[in-house]
Amino acid sequence: MSEVRDRRSAEKTRVDLLVTGDYVLTFNHKKEVVEKGAVALKGDRIAAVGQASSMGEKIEAKEVLDASGCLIMPGLINLHTHAAMTCFRGLADDLPLHEWLHEHIFPAEAAHITEETVYWATLLASVEMIRSGTTTFCDGYFYEDGAAKAVAASGIRAIVGQGVVDFPAPGIPDPRINVKAAEAFVLRWQNKYSRLMPSVFCHSVYTCSPETLIAAKAICKEHKILFQIHLAETEAELEEAEQRYGMRPVEHLLKLGILDADTLCHHAVRVNEKEIELLAQSGVGISHNPESNMKLASGVAPLPKMLTAGVKVGLGTDGCASNNNMDLFQEMDTAAKLHKVHQGDPSLSSAVEMVEMATKGGAAALGMADIVGSLEPGKKADLITIDLNQPHLTPMYEPCSHLVYAARGADVRDVIIDGRMVMLKRQLVEMDEQEIMGKVREIASRIRGRH
Amino acid sequence: MSEVRDRRSAEKTRVDLLVTGDYVLTFNHKKEVVEKGAVALKGDRIAAVGQASSMGEKIEAKEVLDASGCLIMPGLINLHTHAAMTCFRGLADDLPLHEWLHEHIFPAEAAHITEETVYWATLLASVEMIRSGTTTFCDGYFYEDGAAKAVAASGIRAIVGQGVVDFPAPGIPDPRINVKAAEAFVLRWQNKYSRLMPSVFCHSVYTCSPETLIAAKAICKEHKILFQIHLAETEAELEEAEQRYGMRPVEHLLKLGILDADTLCHHAVRVNEKEIELLAQSGVGISHNPESNMKLASGVAPLPKMLTAGVKVGLGTDGCASNNNMDLFQEMDTAAKLHKVHQGDPSLSSAVEMVEMATKGGAAALGMADIVGSLEPGKKADLITIDLNQPHLTPMYEPCSHLVYAARGADVRDVIIDGRMVMLKRQLVEMDEQEIMGKVREIASRIRGRH
Repeated sequence: MSEVRDRRSAEKTRVDLLVTGDYVLTFNHKKEVVEKGAVALKGDRIAAVGQASSMGEKIEAKEVLDASGCLIMPGLINLHTHAAMTCFRGLADDLPLHEWLHEHIFPAEAAHITEETVYWATLLASVEMIRSGTTTFCDGYFYEDGAAKAVAASGIRAIVGQGVVDFPAPGIPDPRINVKAAEAFVLRWQNKYSRLMPSVFCHSVYTCSPETLIAAKAICKEHKILFQIHLAETEAELEEAEQRYGMRPVEHLLKLGILDADTLCHHAVRVNEKEIELLAQSGVGISHNPESNMKLASGVAPLPKMLTAGVKVGLGTDGCASNNNMDLFQEMDTAAKLHKVHQGDPSLSSAVEMVEMATKGGAAALGMADIVGSLEPGKKADLITIDLNQPHLTPMYEPCSHLVYAARGADVRDVIIDGRMVMLKRQLVEMDEQEIMGKVREIASRIRGRH
Repeated sequence: MSEVRDRRSAEKTRVDLLVTGDYVLTFNHKKEVVEKGAVALKGDRIAAVGQASSMGEKIEAKEVLDASGCLIMPGLINLHTHAAMTCFRGLADDLPLHEWLHEHIFPAEAAHITEETVYWATLLASVEMIRSGTTTFCDGYFYEDGAAKAVAASGIRAIVGQGVVDFPAPGIPDPRINVKAAEAFVLRWQNKYSRLMPSVFCHSVYTCSPETLIAAKAICKEHKILFQIHLAETEAELEEAEQRYGMRPVEHLLKLGILDADTLCHHAVRVNEKEIELLAQSGVGISHNPESNMKLASGVAPLPKMLTAGVKVGLGTDGCASNNNMDLFQEMDTAAKLHKVHQGDPSLSSAVEMVEMATKGGAAALGMADIVGSLEPGKKADLITIDLNQPHLTPMYEPCSHLVYAARGADVRDVIIDGRMVMLKRQLVEMDEQEIMGKVREIASRIRGRH
């Protein structure tokens, strides 16, 4: 008997973990939804996806995660964060943009942002994102070594962008070395962890000269990393670009050779039809951040037109000073509803499109479409489960409808990143979140005292 | 010693329950926030509100609920629901309005709405609302006896409106008796439970004739109950009113004598400045339902103008077919952000205004300002606690900012309604939610089969 069993199991594929649940949303090219499905993981990769019953015959798993009553889906991708700004969450709201930025956020940053505060506040952001189902985020801030260390410690996947501006910034008192400092950051972190990719984040066309932008983009090309920039976020930005360069920001960046498939632009609120066409042709990635754009009254980005034109758009939350949380489930909901009312058409921005934007769309915008964003064999094992057995998710007719219009980050039960269990039944596996919250509360009490 | 202690305690006010927490948001006329505060309850009423330390000297409580790490606030008021529509949650989304209503919702209602389905689906809605911090809701639907029974069973406070339309409706095949049936409903439920107030809900000016509206309003006056109606929700409604009555809906209702302090109108999306003035003068209550208005692309109600004009506005979710959840925390967030971007002014719709609208504002719109909506001695003991010790609520600079921009329904820890503990540490005290979810899943499987 024992010999027979051995022979039979020898024929089976051995995997490390089998996750079984009521539904698997694959977001493969057919957008298949598998009822009573399972995902098999081997190391940091997905080995197989299919029906639990047939997988059981072919696969032998060291461990099984029974997610009965749950939906299994790709982890969400937060395309735009300033993660360390969790320490300013709710510090100043409901203010005119200039007053908010110049009287509150900039002074608080100047006084309190250090590598240590960035480390703890990014760790808090990572915990918040993991708890709400984000498995990859794309960041940009100063003292970004602190963010990189937090990513390394937290188990989350991230693109970590060192900020560049042409004036003194936290950690870079001399702006003449801003690009050099960013390159040094890239060299410190490249190829150190497979989960962590360094990047350079030039703040905007109005805070970075053409020379700075060109130099920073050259470094990104040399090291094959992502270049990031805020683009066409506000009316004031357009006016300033017109005044300084005699053209709108999209044209300006295009002329400088910045817009290509290895660049990610944030917001694109104020882009016209011609510019949308240019964005599509260039292959550039765009982050759509509806809640931040609403809260700061920046405007409504033309998302439906961008999607129709084939622009690679993903979803972001922006920093916690302008949202004020990092829950992408809520961001999907807001995006879906905002564009319907803005265009007067309830059929726009469908639930399926929004989930696709927050997973596969984000991966494509990052140039990581082969690595994350869907549950397919060979991709990185980044997945989450959603607990469907809750009053506000009952009954269920269509999974994507629930993910967008009814679910919230708190409905995420388990999180696996890079094949590693990071959250199990809403308990973080390794991180001490009480310690992390305590550290950020200490930072906040200093900010409160000197603000 | 024991004698001394007895004498001392004899001098103290005896209460049933003392709830202590890190902050008490009173929403009294000074909007006082008490740090390290407490609320004392006696029977179904609030006996005292103050600092926990000084309350301890004056009050002897049979029981203490220690909500350390939590914020205590008035329960939220959901001003507009069709609670039983939880059974259609996500049945049909992202469709043009006419197709959604006529090909999906109306046929499903005709085939599946009975007193029993209304009972279970309203019970599910009540559980969902309790879990997300709503302690009072204002409903309108058919077979509303089912809703009233669910309210009685759930422990929640509600205004329960029997629906009236001039065509055959669930439970009222003969529209000639629609108003009589509503009156019979009122008589069955009036003064039966202090938590439950019957109401008459005339659907709209385009589904109810002037005669029906006048007769229904007369009954409401006679029985001193709330009259409800959808008002100026869509452009089509305006066109139809112009065509039939040669005037806009507000003027039409004003002429019929419908608009007074005992009437609650839902939506008021398409009202001009003159009409806003008329709404303010009439003392009528208005429910603002931003997420439903966005999802159905109905438009953006002029909330900031209504608030400035002194219109009594509260917040609602509308039914689950057009939202698709009943989380008022999310609704506050959406309302705050929507009006900022819509008007291009980030200082509009502040966090404090939004929380006030979801508590005190709702109470005023219902004519219940003396009963609920704030934590003040003599008012009904309807309160909730929010667990602040969570990553997405860390750090905290300003409580209302967190309630609107960072918190979600899932952050509600305890719920007390009418002095009774309904949810304790996220566990429902009396209701069996697995049974309730199971019953609604059965209803949904029938809907799925015949839809």
